[in-house]
Amino acid sequence: MDEQGKKRAVCLVSGGMDSAVALAEARADGFDAYALSFEYGQRFRCELAAAQRVAVSGGAVEHRIVGVDLGAIGGSALTADIDVPKDRDAHAIGQGVPVTYVPARNTIFLAIALGWAEVLGATDLYLGVNALDYSGYPDCRPAFLEAFEALANVATAAGTEQGARFQIHAPLVERSKADIVRRAFELGVDLSGTHSCYDPLAPSVDDEDARWLACGRCDACALRLKGFAEAGHTDPIPYAPKAPRA
Amino acid sequence: MDEQGKKRAVCLVSGGMDSAVALAEARADGFDAYALSFEYGQRFRCELAAAQRVAVSGGAVEHRIVGVDLGAIGGSALTADIDVPKDRDAHAIGQGVPVTYVPARNTIFLAIALGWAEVLGATDLYLGVNALDYSGYPDCRPAFLEAFEALANVATAAGTEQGARFQIHAPLVERSKADIVRRAFELGVDLSGTHSCYDPLAPSVDDEDARWLACGRCDACALRLKGFAEAGHTDPIPYAPKAPRA
Repeated sequence: MDEQGKKRAVCLVSGGMDSAVALAEARADGFDAYALSFEYGQRFRCELAAAQRVAVSGGAVEHRIVGVDLGAIGGSALTADIDVPKDRDAHAIGQGVPVTYVPARNTIFLAIALGWAEVLGATDLYLGVNALDYSGYPDCRPAFLEAFEALANVATAAGTEQGARFQIHAPLVERSKADIVRRAFELGVDLSGTHSCYDPLAPSVDDEDARWLACGRCDACALRLKGFAEAGHTDPIPYAPKAPRA
Repeated sequence: MDEQGKKRAVCLVSGGMDSAVALAEARADGFDAYALSFEYGQRFRCELAAAQRVAVSGGAVEHRIVGVDLGAIGGSALTADIDVPKDRDAHAIGQGVPVTYVPARNTIFLAIALGWAEVLGATDLYLGVNALDYSGYPDCRPAFLEAFEALANVATAAGTEQGARFQIHAPLVERSKADIVRRAFELGVDLSGTHSCYDPLAPSVDDEDARWLACGRCDACALRLKGFAEAGHTDPIPYAPKAPRA
């Protein structure tokens, strides 16, 4: 509980659109939001700059960035030197486990979030995973979230000694990207600071605050642009000059 | 599978006596052992030196150390500036959750081990947790291990797409410290390089290879010394000059 008597929730914030909306859902549910991001050996540090923008514009009470060196175990195009696929359609994106899958990533991130929640006296965790678009990621599915919730209640002093019941909230898990865009507009989420691209272009000016440009062609960009198009909104983030647009 | 057709197992190695025995159990079960340790903001880096000695003397095929900054979430005497309790008897040690509990630590460590296992094509994880002596740590109990095993099978591409069944092995979970000492001698485990102390003394000589001295008074030392005494063996590690001995 915070001073104002509000309950606390830990919110995983990647800097992407989905986590920005999940953070807004936590606040709409009446929680004080504690944003948590990871420096996990991702190839592009602009993700963390986006996470910071999302935490600030989303009104988080605090934003922590925890280092965890997933590069040391390898195995993914997002941390190792493997090519990111381009120009696939939404159907192809949904098939099988993509190379951008980071082994056990959401398990690891939720485990650290659980640790911070215990320290904060929080029992609610929010994350922006989505099972529809990313059906190839096992750790984005409802069965995973249920298993993690069961684990949380036996893994912690809060769950075993103090009778607390942890809840894993994944408010976007069954929503389409278009629904997520619509919900962002309903909740007044500022999407201009978010970053989804797996393979962004460096800014042409040498300025720390300059924004990286989304490629418009990787799976993450393709799904995002399709979502905006279906929702009838314009994506406010900067794209590379030759990128396909919604 | 390794070249020789042996199955692989990921073994959590803290550098303590229990993890050294768990690693030996994995090899006795016929696995090639892949040792995994963490640089998690522990106050004493001599733990990692001990982990390295254990991995080498235990015959691990490989030893990886993954950085994860648990100090950033705080909440424990092992990572934050909280006093480590001293001179408690075994009964007191068993009561409640001690301040040396690191929130969600084993959940986090197993999650990272699971990620590495997926990269290695391994489905067996070994860890040296013990529910008897450390009954105050929720993430050392059988219910926790079962919940993690259930999670592993829905959290991974291996578990969901490839029909693999993960198994969490905690061969010491129901054994007393004296039994663990006896088992170490049976399996020929070299315990001289292990380190268990929560509050060790720096070596008096300025030499990188010089060993830190166990305090003999923290909970970990008390349980270890009691185990050796009951098993009728002498602990081969160096203790501080004024430490109580078995």
